[in-house]
Parts: sequence; C-alpha cells; structure tokens
Amino acid sequence: VGEKKQVLTPAELAGRMVQGDNLALGRVINHLETRDGATAELVRIIHGHTGRAHRIGLTGVPGGGKSTLVDRLTAVFRRAGTTVGIIGVDPSSPFSGGAVLGDRIRMQQHYLDRGVFIRSMATRGNSGGLPRTIGEVADAMDASGKDVILIETVGVGQSELDIIKNVDTVVVVLAPGLGDGIQAMKAGVLEIADIFVINKDDQPGALELTLEINNMVSPARGKTYWNIPVLTTQATANKNIEELHRQIGAHLTALKAASRLEEQRRRQRREHFMQMLEDRVTSGIDGTLRHDAELSGFIEEVATGRIDTYSAVEKVFQSESLFDGLKTRLRSKEI
Amino acid sequence: VGEKKQVLTPAELAGRMVQGDNLALGRVINHLETRDGATAELVRIIHGHTGRAHRIGLTGVPGGGKSTLVDRLTAVFRRAGTTVGIIGVDPSSPFSGGAVLGDRIRMQQHYLDRGVFIRSMATRGNSGGLPRTIGEVADAMDASGKDVILIETVGVGQSELDIIKNVDTVVVVLAPGLGDGIQAMKAGVLEIADIFVINKDDQPGALELTLEINNMVSPARGKTYWNIPVLTTQATANKNIEELHRQIGAHLTALKAASRLEEQRRRQRREHFMQMLEDRVTSGIDGTLRHDAELSGFIEEVATGRIDTYSAVEKVFQSESLFDGLKTRLRSKEI
Repeated sequence: VGEKKQVLTPAELAGRMVQGDNLALGRVINHLETRDGATAELVRIIHGHTGRAHRIGLTGVPGGGKSTLVDRLTAVFRRAGTTVGIIGVDPSSPFSGGAVLGDRIRMQQHYLDRGVFIRSMATRGNSGGLPRTIGEVADAMDASGKDVILIETVGVGQSELDIIKNVDTVVVVLAPGLGDGIQAMKAGVLEIADIFVINKDDQPGALELTLEINNMVSPARGKTYWNIPVLTTQATANKNIEELHRQIGAHLTALKAASRLEEQRRRQRREHFMQMLEDRVTSGIDGTLRHDAELSGFIEEVATGRIDTYSAVEKVFQSESLFDGLKTRLRSKEI
Repeated sequence: VGEKKQVLTPAELAGRMVQGDNLALGRVINHLETRDGATAELVRIIHGHTGRAHRIGLTGVPGGGKSTLVDRLTAVFRRAGTTVGIIGVDPSSPFSGGAVLGDRIRMQQHYLDRGVFIRSMATRGNSGGLPRTIGEVADAMDASGKDVILIETVGVGQSELDIIKNVDTVVVVLAPGLGDGIQAMKAGVLEIADIFVINKDDQPGALELTLEINNMVSPARGKTYWNIPVLTTQATANKNIEELHRQIGAHLTALKAASRLEEQRRRQRREHFMQMLEDRVTSGIDGTLRHDAELSGFIEEVATGRIDTYSAVEKVFQSESLFDGLKTRLRSKEI
C-alpha cells in the first residue's frame, strides 16, 4: 500500500474516490485537511461531481444524545438502501477523550459497512478555516457517491453555527434537564432549525420542553414553505427514529418543491467562496506584516504601547509595501 | 441631559470618563460598540490612560454558578476598597432572557454602588469583532479608573476563547454534575486557566471533579512561575470567596515578579492590532468584491456552480481592480 500511495496522482486518487472507494476518499480528505500540493487539484475535480447528496446537520447541546441518534438514524438510512457519510465535529477537550471514544464505539455497528463512511474532525486549533474544510470534506463524500451526509456538531459556538448553516436540512436535538445548556446555545442555531427533536422523551421535563419549543415555532406555522416539526424520540430505545427519517426526507421534498434547494446552495457556495477569499487575504496580511521591516515595526510600536491600534492601522494602510506585499503573496500559488 | 449630550466633544466626554464619571463611561462604551465618528478619537485618548487595571476573566460551562461568583467576588473587592468594572458576555439565546435577567438581578446589590460599573455585551451577530470591542471596553473601564475588570464569559466557543485570552488572570469555574458540558468546553480554555474554581462544592461529585482537575494541573507544579490552585467554593453561601480574592491577587503578584505581566500585555496589544487589521481588510475585500462589476461576476459564477472556489479565488487575485479597490477603501477614514 505504501508504494501505491506514492504513485497515485491526485487525478487518479480522485478517480477512485468518485467510484466509491472509501480508502481513496479517506486519503482525499487527508489532503483537504493538510492543505498540501494536491489540495487545489482535488477540490477542482471534486467540484465536478457534487450536488447530489442530501446534507443534514444535527446539532444541539452536549448530553442530548446526538451521537446515539446519528447511529440509529444511520441504521434506518442503511435499511432503506441509502449510503451515508458522517462527519463528527469534536470539541476536542482533554476531558472528551473518553466520551468521544465512546461515541465512536457506539457507531461501531457501521464500521464494517462499506455503505457508511465516518470521519471525525477536531475543532481544536482549527477555528477559522474549519467550516470551509468541513464543506470540502462533505463535497468529497458527495462526489464519492454518498447519498446523505450527516454532520454532527455541538451547537454552542460561532464556528459550529457556521458549519451547520451550510447544510440542506438542520436538525436541532434537545433533551430535558439540560436547561442551562440550552440557554448557552446560540440563538442562531435555534433559528435555523428545520426539524426539532426532543430526545430522551422518557425523562422528566420532556413534555414541558416539547411544549416550549412548539410555542416557539407555532407562530410561523402555515406561513412558510415548511412547517417545522417537533418530534419526540428516545434514541437508545430506537423510538420514533423512523419518523425522524421520514421528516428529513419530507424536508428535502419541500425544499425542492419550493425551489429553495438550489437557492440555499447558491448562498452556501457564495459564503464558502467569500470565506476562502478572506482566509487567504488574512494570512497574506499576516505574512506581509511579519516579513516587511517597516511594517513589522508598527507591530512592535503597538506591542510596547507607544502607539494606539487605530493610529497604527491607519499608518499601515498608507504604506505601499503593504499592498505590494499582499499582491505578491496572494498571487503565489500557495494555498 | 439631551442637550448636554449633543454639545460634548469626544475629548470632553473622554475627559469626564477619565475622572471616573460612570455616565460618561457608559456613553464612551456606546461609541465603541456602534463604531461611529467619535470612536477613533476616543480609542486614542483612552489609550493614554490604560495599563493600570487588573483584568480578570471568569469562564466556564453554563450552570457552574459564574454570575453568583462574580457577584460575591465583587462584594469582597468592594470591601477592600477596590473599584470594579464588570463585562458580562451574554450568549443571547432567545431562551436566555430569563436567566440573564436573573443574573443581572442577582447583581443588583451593586447597581447603586458608584465604585462598580456593569456592562452586558451580546455575542449575537457579533462574532468577528466582539473580542476586539470587549478589549476596547475594558480599556475604557481601565482609563476611567476601575481597579479590577471582571470579564465573564461562557467558555464554550472560539470567540469566548479569544476574549478570555486577553486578560491578565484567567479563572475557570467548574461545577460537579455538568460532565457533558465540561467535555464540550474548548480544550484551550482549560489550558489557559490560572486558577480553577470548583463551585457548588456541596454537590455530589465535587470531590471527584476536584481530584480530576488536580491531577490535570499537578504535573506542572513547581515548574513554572505560578502553581495553578484548585479552589473549592460555594458562591451562594459565600464560602471561600475570600480565598479566591486572595489567589487572584497572588497571581498578579506572581506575574509581576516573573516580569510576565508586561510580556502578556505586549502579546495582547499585538493580537488586538492584528485582529483589527484583519477585520478592516476583510470588510474591505467584501466591499470591493460586491461593488466591482467584474469581481462580483466571480461571486455569481461560484454561486451557480459554474466554477470551483479555488479557481475563482486564483482568478480574483489576478485582478488589479481588487487591489486598487482595497487600497482605496482601506485608506478612507471609515472605521
């Protein structure tokens, strides 16, 4: 395998991936994550094979049982003959080792199934570019022929919100007894829900939480292309997972009927593009400032407190070498 | 008051703020938040009066009792004659209305105290620039003569991590029974803790959590300028808050003794400057692309899927009008 790995060109690797080879898909994703010499070509090839998969985001507070739900939902998709790509976004706390490992073990019924491809991605040290990379990984899974892509995040930070905005269908998973956690969840996540799931519906407080969410969504009922359902499930007991599966399919049908799927995807592509531009320009600015003697002098002046940031920013923008340096850097082929 | 408001120049307003006028401080902060015509001048004046206050960040999972702890700690500071500025960073979920209001009511013993200035800031719709704005608000409180500034965040997202990095002393507040929440907290937050507080120490699991955190920090004991203490408190009962107050003071002393305070602040000023530069350039790129016919054509090509993002980015960077437009925008005096 070691030798084979070296002789495959990006195009050959992508070719295997497109034919549904999970090993090739895994290696393509490695290239997307490391952003090496093959990344640009791979993204170009992948681009020509995307747009078919249904992208589903599952988000919610920690402790809501999302991982079990993803596991059970995957089983329902598989029984229906649907292939599944799963992206788990891990908060990567030192404390989470056990729990995340546990999540993955829960998923192990699917590890030997070639119709399922599972990938974990760490948020750690990844804040800026992560939503972009996850979008590309989802594209790769799409290009490799996965029918649905499940993206699982913890819905508490801006970075998670940026990820979850870029799917077709957003499932927000809540559970009773996590009140403080729900309060901490970004408003934005609740607002973009297409389906609410109240999991652990056998726990105290489940009814109240269901009513609360129903009250929240009911004013919009009948006024948009889609009436947001509030489902109650119990993932560990496989309760109502078929209904969740049905509603996810119904949402895709509604998106298409309202001609909204293409509209959403246009917006997603636009955002992805602007994000990538901004990332590149930001790193171009960093590089230019650090490597130019005059400009790095400003950093030092600000650091010591001799000049305030506003005045320093204005002075930097008067410099011609900033724009020259930026232009040179951005036109180099580096990613 | 209405007329007075209009005739005060930024310099006059800043002058009152520097003399400790809380009303003027509040109005200065309004200008910092809205980024209007007075902002740049205010930042310049504030800059000349900063560097005296001890900045303390308190972060942790929701439900850990941070707000009560901040309230009790403020009382201890006040008894010692120390003036206090408080910045509460609210996740602003639609669900949090009650809780946050509750937090503020808990703080009400301090509202009539002119030695305390409290300000809530919402994270919502604020992701990119928020850490920068909070830094400026802390500067304003510093310039107005507050001896300590307490910044309270929920330590779960990248944006909160960016905020909490820019203080002198980081207090991470945990509580038993929130295991899943702790797992969701960014590794980065735990790693930058200067003091751990296990609050609600009367609850089941408090001892185990204290041992767990002690095991985490003990390998570093005796190897750095500061041995991270793990305190147990019960904020509602005022238990051990004096000890927290003492340890916060001890940490500042240790920072100074190790000549690390100035070093940390240099790093903070540098980051603040780079952030501001990047924010400005990012919004310059956005504006240029949207207002240039040729460049906005690329956005459209990407949105419809006719071209992949990588190729589009490369083409945009070949355009001269991108750099010309960017230069013009960045050199205009707008903030």
